[in-house]
Amino acid sequence: MTTLQVGLLGFGTVGAGVARLLIDSADRIRDRLGMGLNLKYVADIDLTTDRGVRLAAGVLIDDAERVVNDPEVDIVIEMIGGEGIAKTLILQAIANGKQVVTANKALLAKHGKELFQAADRKGVDLAFEASVGGCMPVIKTLRESLVGNRINGMGGILNGTCNYILSRITDEGIDFREALAKATEAGYAEADPTLDVEGFDTAHKLAILTSLAYGTEVDFDDIFIEGITQITPLDIDFARQFGYRIKLLAISKNHGDRVEARVHPTMIPEGNLLSTISGSLNALNISGDAVGDVMLYGHGAGMMPTASAVVGDVVDIARNLSRGATGRVPLRSFQPDKIGRIPIVSVEELVTHYYFRFTVKDQPGVLSTISGILGEYGISIQSVQQKGRKSSGAVPVVMLTHRAREADVQKAFRRIEALDVVDEKPMLIRLEDNGGID
Amino acid sequence: MTTLQVGLLGFGTVGAGVARLLIDSADRIRDRLGMGLNLKYVADIDLTTDRGVRLAAGVLIDDAERVVNDPEVDIVIEMIGGEGIAKTLILQAIANGKQVVTANKALLAKHGKELFQAADRKGVDLAFEASVGGCMPVIKTLRESLVGNRINGMGGILNGTCNYILSRITDEGIDFREALAKATEAGYAEADPTLDVEGFDTAHKLAILTSLAYGTEVDFDDIFIEGITQITPLDIDFARQFGYRIKLLAISKNHGDRVEARVHPTMIPEGNLLSTISGSLNALNISGDAVGDVMLYGHGAGMMPTASAVVGDVVDIARNLSRGATGRVPLRSFQPDKIGRIPIVSVEELVTHYYFRFTVKDQPGVLSTISGILGEYGISIQSVQQKGRKSSGAVPVVMLTHRAREADVQKAFRRIEALDVVDEKPMLIRLEDNGGID
Repeated sequence: MTTLQVGLLGFGTVGAGVARLLIDSADRIRDRLGMGLNLKYVADIDLTTDRGVRLAAGVLIDDAERVVNDPEVDIVIEMIGGEGIAKTLILQAIANGKQVVTANKALLAKHGKELFQAADRKGVDLAFEASVGGCMPVIKTLRESLVGNRINGMGGILNGTCNYILSRITDEGIDFREALAKATEAGYAEADPTLDVEGFDTAHKLAILTSLAYGTEVDFDDIFIEGITQITPLDIDFARQFGYRIKLLAISKNHGDRVEARVHPTMIPEGNLLSTISGSLNALNISGDAVGDVMLYGHGAGMMPTASAVVGDVVDIARNLSRGATGRVPLRSFQPDKIGRIPIVSVEELVTHYYFRFTVKDQPGVLSTISGILGEYGISIQSVQQKGRKSSGAVPVVMLTHRAREADVQKAFRRIEALDVVDEKPMLIRLEDNGGID
Repeated sequence: MTTLQVGLLGFGTVGAGVARLLIDSADRIRDRLGMGLNLKYVADIDLTTDRGVRLAAGVLIDDAERVVNDPEVDIVIEMIGGEGIAKTLILQAIANGKQVVTANKALLAKHGKELFQAADRKGVDLAFEASVGGCMPVIKTLRESLVGNRINGMGGILNGTCNYILSRITDEGIDFREALAKATEAGYAEADPTLDVEGFDTAHKLAILTSLAYGTEVDFDDIFIEGITQITPLDIDFARQFGYRIKLLAISKNHGDRVEARVHPTMIPEGNLLSTISGSLNALNISGDAVGDVMLYGHGAGMMPTASAVVGDVVDIARNLSRGATGRVPLRSFQPDKIGRIPIVSVEELVTHYYFRFTVKDQPGVLSTISGILGEYGISIQSVQQKGRKSSGAVPVVMLTHRAREADVQKAFRRIEALDVVDEKPMLIRLEDNGGID
């Protein structure tokens, strides 16, 4: 029996979780893997903060380059995050022939092609299960378990912060600011929550999933992204009256020659399992031609759930190393020469159902004016609700539409917004009766 | 690029699905695997039934032995089922150095040790993702993704027939016989539904999961099994009044030196995600020390979902073959010399909450007599409900208990059954507030 040497870059929360799990479960891993994993280095610029993990003498260093350049290190785990030094170190590790594990979704979403090509050229593994869905094995399921399927689509709740905030707004009727404050207090939101609440984090994950599901390169900028900051208790309440919940969904659909990839608040029916996912939990529904729908559900983030996914990757790589089978599963799901570039449908071309909320002056003829304009653009209304008068004298008019083209909706909205009888900017929420995977 | 030769044993529903998927998705599999899979043989005793799958000339044969003995065949897929000829053929294939894929849960649950030891000795892979949970990647998740975790427990709905029947009883208030008839009509129940409705199929799957989760040999006869034939609309209705649903659960808990492994109708809270799994769908909740809870959900059976899992296994094995990495993941999750024999707790030792329903004569003092007997055995009552009088003059008395020992419950029941004021056999349903994984 031999032992593999592991070097960890980054000793923050998740890095500390990885170190702890590698140390605490060393015996179990050996019993399953048939060889040992030794945590040779943990590199971090902060050598003083106590992370509650007992490292052997000499393991904690402040020199990350030493980790990626030490010929004895077999596997490098990157837990630094961001697109700067993390990228440089990963590329250096690959150049030195080391296997790499990362959870860095932003980096993979934006620079994945460069990193994967470098790893393919060098013939090393670059594993990233922890980058999407935390402990849920979404990458392994897409790359391995569903290999016989044409993936038709995916719909998922992939950001615990947003789901926590939306759950609080739904359950307590508080507004976005208050719910965000509660999320921060509960430790579910970062000091700067922009990446989460504006939908970018979800979009990073969607870019990775879309690439793996269809064997395509994804330009991150092609993904339509809308966050949850505009969602009000009023909209959540109307949604509920129509039998819907509002979730921030990552949606991907395979149209063969084109794919959809979009992130936005989405109304889904109460009966859909995704609508029951509450609090900080994540879930991903994958639809395949053979498999039907399969859903994964669990903690999408957090110290130990993420560490669990990272250690799964490390053991996978160790299994490859011990058998000389590195590169056994192609990094991007398809063989490198089979990866195409399928265009992503722009949001203007999107055809779906919509929820509209207009705030209008409470006077006769308004509804007829608005529905007239919608009609001009071919947008037909499925149902309308009008609620009690606001103190300002303005009332909300709420509509669900039949399927309509987003470009037409935007044009109609510009006309409607300009009406004298319309106060405030109209609200629009896209609706997916099948949780994003029809 | 080379091509691997695949031989399929059994051309029934699932076998036909596997053949169809291998043929229809050949190009996609090649793009991902980097090599081709050729379906060289399909063996079945029935050469005449049209399965809707176009096989090349000479592929369909009636001689299964030719498949397992042909030196050109690399991978044998066993889709015959049962414990007779299937076992003989698998052992012969292994003896000939072939890799094997099977979905045969009954065979693995009862003869797994012999088969796995034969495969280990010969150094071949024996894959069985499709044996549990159909398309849900439960085996891969347990063996690979969660490798860093101590598995604390599992709770699952693993039989679509039972879940369909219980859903119909719940939704329509019909009795078991009627619901079974509807399941048969809808194609969800076999001509002989015993294996399903008596809980044996679920127990076969639980035996496999328990073995993989904890690295232990499981004697199938040690698993406590109770089916759903005694469940009445009345009990489902009472359960609902207490805020519970009734599901046939596979439950496994890790107590370190002992494990629980049991299958029985179980009351779980409405808020638990497992209680929302309806119809023929399956779900498995796995609890690990790092991961927290992770749940998989999807079609637990059916032609193409099962075929999807089989093809996933075939590709996994092909990846190993192409890299000389056969045996890369130990068949039973742990290295063969690390597999122990952890005793399974007998049902008498079980300590849990219970639902009781007694049918009693509507006269004073009955409740006091019953609760007195329960008290003698240390069983304390959490809540009691009594419903309207039955036409016979007997009324149901329903109770939820605090935690009690099953042996005590059984002793108390024998005393209570013997009372003159008690009609019918009392009903007992075990209750799991955490869906079986606390």
